[in-house]
Amino acid sequence: MKLIPLFDKIVLRQISTRQNKGVILPDTISESPSMGEVVYVGTGGMLDGNEINIILKEKDKVLFHKFTASEFSINNESLYIIKQSDILCIVEGEDE
Amino acid sequence: MKLIPLFDKIVLRQISTRQNKGVILPDTISESPSMGEVVYVGTGGMLDGNEINIILKEKDKVLFHKFTASEFSINNESLYIIKQSDILCIVEGEDE
Amino acid sequence: MKLIPLFDKIVLRQISTRQNKGVILPDTISESPSMGEVVYVGTGGMLDGNEINIILKEKDKVLFHKFTASEFSINNESLYIIKQSDILCIVEGEDE
Amino acid sequence: MKLIPLFDKIVLRQISTRQNKGVILPDTISESPSMGEVVYVGTGGMLDGNEINIILKEKDKVLFHKFTASEFSINNESLYIIKQSDILCIVEGEDE
Amino acid sequence: MKLIPLFDKIVLRQISTRQNKGVILPDTISESPSMGEVVYVGTGGMLDGNEINIILKEKDKVLFHKFTASEFSINNESLYIIKQSDILCIVEGEDE
Amino acid sequence: MKLIPLFDKIVLRQISTRQNKGVILPDTISESPSMGEVVYVGTGGMLDGNEINIILKEKDKVLFHKFTASEFSINNESLYIIKQSDILCIVEGEDE
Amino acid sequence: MKLIPLFDKIVLRQISTRQNKGVILPDTISESPSMGEVVYVGTGGMLDGNEINIILKEKDKVLFHKFTASEFSINNESLYIIKQSDILCIVEGEDE
Repeated sequence: MKLIPLFDKIVLRQISTRQNKGVILPDTISESPSMGEVVYVGTGGMLDGNEINIILKEKDKVLFHKFTASEFSINNESLYIIKQSDILCIVEGEDE
Repeated sequence: MKLIPLFDKIVLRQISTRQNKGVILPDTISESPSMGEVVYVGTGGMLDGNEINIILKEKDKVLFHKFTASEFSINNESLYIIKQSDILCIVEGEDE
Repeated sequence: MKLIPLFDKIVLRQISTRQNKGVILPDTISESPSMGEVVYVGTGGMLDGNEINIILKEKDKVLFHKFTASEFSINNESLYIIKQSDILCIVEGEDE
Repeated sequence: MKLIPLFDKIVLRQISTRQNKGVILPDTISESPSMGEVVYVGTGGMLDGNEINIILKEKDKVLFHKFTASEFSINNESLYIIKQSDILCIVEGEDE
Repeated sequence: MKLIPLFDKIVLRQISTRQNKGVILPDTISESPSMGEVVYVGTGGMLDGNEINIILKEKDKVLFHKFTASEFSINNESLYIIKQSDILCIVEGEDE
Repeated sequence: MKLIPLFDKIVLRQISTRQNKGVILPDTISESPSMGEVVYVGTGGMLDGNEINIILKEKDKVLFHKFTASEFSINNESLYIIKQSDILCIVEGEDE
Repeated sequence: MKLIPLFDKIVLRQISTRQNKGVILPDTISESPSMGEVVYVGTGGMLDGNEINIILKEKDKVLFHKFTASEFSINNESLYIIKQSDILCIVEGEDE
């Protein structure tokens, strides 16, 4: 099974912050961003007259706010759909 | 009888999540997306000065939020009208 | 007497759902769309820098939300004025 | 004395619905549109980068919502200033 | 001393409605427009990518809503700063 | 030390209205504008696709609303950061 | 580990105002801006049809409002993600 997000949408799998070494995202700060891994990227194309450039790729690790994303689950795994421009940043080299 | 959605609108038939094998959309999460099947696609054309590209086609399975759609019923079947860009993603290969 | 809606506006006559065979629009769902017949279409032209294309024509049957329309009455008949892009879809072949 | 509405604004004189034969605008429906006669039309010109086309002319009879207009009085006559695009429709042939 | 309003702003001096012969603006209608005289016009120029055309000139008499303007006083005289497009209309020939 | 406001932002030093001869800005009117002197002007450049023209220069005296500005202090002096287009007008010749 | 903010986003490290000599940002004024140092700048590129110009560079000291930024922490250090155009100004020569 495969998901194809429309236009500028991205599907993320949340990564437990316990898996991360450097990034600490305290659960107690409700406004604090979460970490996710890109599972599917959007189709791109023209939306509202503007060309959408998908700059994220699968497996990118990113920080995002859950309140800007929609949660659902597939095969007992929580996924999030979010607009690319709502993603805050890519996290690189985190496992090294 | 046939429906012709205007511009960027899409008519969906909700698919019971029981029919799906992999995707689990818990009823208890009110914000959780629903699964639907595309029944009719919009006319496309120019709207507010922008060209609308209909990238969905009939029989596509999609995830969408009910609160972004309008519900009505034809022949005792619940249908939803929604703007294409409010649809979250296409679900492919779900029955295999 | 004749009405000429400005720009992208459409005048509809509501059709009682009792007249319809297939479409059932339950009165109890306040958010449910209504069925209407196009009585007058707008002048089209340029509005806010965008060309307006009127794609509806008189006698088209459509679904619309009353809360997106303005109601008034002429000769004891209820009419609705609505922006074309707020109309949800055209209903074709409904009487056959 | 003469008024020159700026850009896309129109000055209307309200017409008592008693003067009208066909159009009945019940006073009890607060959201119901009013009937007015165009007294002065706007200067047109460029506003926010868009060309304004004045398609109404003096003496046109129109339907409009009072809550989209500003009321004032000149020589004991109530007048309304309203943006042209907020006017709902022109009423033609009403006196015949 | 001289004021130079920026871009599309206009400085008005309120005119007492007692000085006016024809226009009656009842004080009791809080939403009713006020009459003002243009004292200074804006610099024009480009704002947010759009060319601003100043069509008002000094000494023009206009109708405006106080709630769309900012009040201050110079030499004990109340003045108002307002965006040109918020001014409702020019009043001509009022003293004749 | 020097501040470089980004894009269309301006840094102002508030001027006590006691220093001014003609302009009286009553403290009791909370919505009344304040007088300020331009200390630093923005970098200009492209923002959201529009060219920003900085028309203010250092030492210009201006009227502005404190609620459209951000206050901070440097060396015990209160400064304000504000978007240029939120500044109401330049005050010229005030000391003469 | 490295962060790559998307499009027009900037990652800041807050600087304690005790480290600064001239700038005093009272903690008691909740609306007062904070001082930060640029740690990572955004990718730039096209967003919503507009070219994004990143004019900040790493190590720039800036003033910003915390309520326009998202806080998180890496290796026990608080960082902030913010849109470049929400940053108020660059502070230069502060240590000299």
